[in-house]
Amino acid sequence: MAEPIEFYFDFSSPYSYIASEQIDALAAKYGRTVEYKPLLLGAVFKASGGAPLTELYGPKAQYAIRDFARSARHAGVPYRQPSRFPIASMAAKRSVVWLQQHRPERTAPFIHAVYRAFFVDDRDISDPAVVSDIAREVGIDTAALTAGIQQPEIKDRLRAQVEQAIEAGFFGAPTIIVDGELFWGNDRMPQIERWLSDGPY
Amino acid sequence: MAEPIEFYFDFSSPYSYIASEQIDALAAKYGRTVEYKPLLLGAVFKASGGAPLTELYGPKAQYAIRDFARSARHAGVPYRQPSRFPIASMAAKRSVVWLQQHRPERTAPFIHAVYRAFFVDDRDISDPAVVSDIAREVGIDTAALTAGIQQPEIKDRLRAQVEQAIEAGFFGAPTIIVDGELFWGNDRMPQIERWLSDGPY
Repeated sequence: MAEPIEFYFDFSSPYSYIASEQIDALAAKYGRTVEYKPLLLGAVFKASGGAPLTELYGPKAQYAIRDFARSARHAGVPYRQPSRFPIASMAAKRSVVWLQQHRPERTAPFIHAVYRAFFVDDRDISDPAVVSDIAREVGIDTAALTAGIQQPEIKDRLRAQVEQAIEAGFFGAPTIIVDGELFWGNDRMPQIERWLSDGPY
Repeated sequence: MAEPIEFYFDFSSPYSYIASEQIDALAAKYGRTVEYKPLLLGAVFKASGGAPLTELYGPKAQYAIRDFARSARHAGVPYRQPSRFPIASMAAKRSVVWLQQHRPERTAPFIHAVYRAFFVDDRDISDPAVVSDIAREVGIDTAALTAGIQQPEIKDRLRAQVEQAIEAGFFGAPTIIVDGELFWGNDRMPQIERWLSDGPY
């Protein structure tokens, strides 16, 4: 069995969102699965000297906002620049970790729903009540989820995962690992597909 | 007649090199020409708060070096990481400006030859004597060129062009303008091709 594709993402990252809309089908095409790994991009940036694209030099930030939308259109993915951006999404990330343990088959639908809520419907995914609503919409028992993401074990697991990513030198999102090879950015999807198709090049 | 594609580049930029190897054919396919515009990326970074990728956070710099080579292989472009990097290339840039006035049909061959000298043959393109050798190799009268790039008018023209780019808010290379739309990076080539083919999207 081929290794899963590791998909490190932040809900606040537009390029992660655009890539997330393509990665399941791409993985399936090459007989792979996707292992979703939430990052805390703020912590990653703090360690690596990065910053949200929209907080950079003015013209670069303006370009980024234009490029988010153009890149989404190019990929055929619906996109609307959220009114609050960037945004924290701790409850949503802890939910991913809890789901992976308790309702693994609901993990990907939940991730896609949170992303769409943020990048299409402009919902405030930093609000745990909104996250709970989204979970309900994709058939998750929200009482169990809400209790679950308060468990120290879930919090610790997310924290440990982020620390590992920082120790591994990750510096942005999406970071996509295929058989040990690191690809950074939605714009590396063609290279990822070739790696899956032909192996290392 | 459709507008030329404006191609802003620095000889020290690997992604500009990879894009430069594709842009002439892409332009020709859609009935366009390419207008090459040398940038001084150091001055652009100074104004925009950028830095050479290899001078960033260690793991990001290491990734960049790996990605330069992988992106070149993906594009079918020969690549070897130069032993001196990044590098100044004032004589080569002034040569581009002089050629555009005096030997316009030799401009693109010269640019491609300088890039190959740096990114394939590891020649020191910061050395004016090396630039002169490269010019000779592509059939340029080097006596005229060497005198030409000392003219204040050539120096001023390059400087003015870089200042314009900075005023326009450019922040990196390659910066590629198609009908007023700005694309940044070799990885935007598929989006550029779609823009050329289908118009704005």
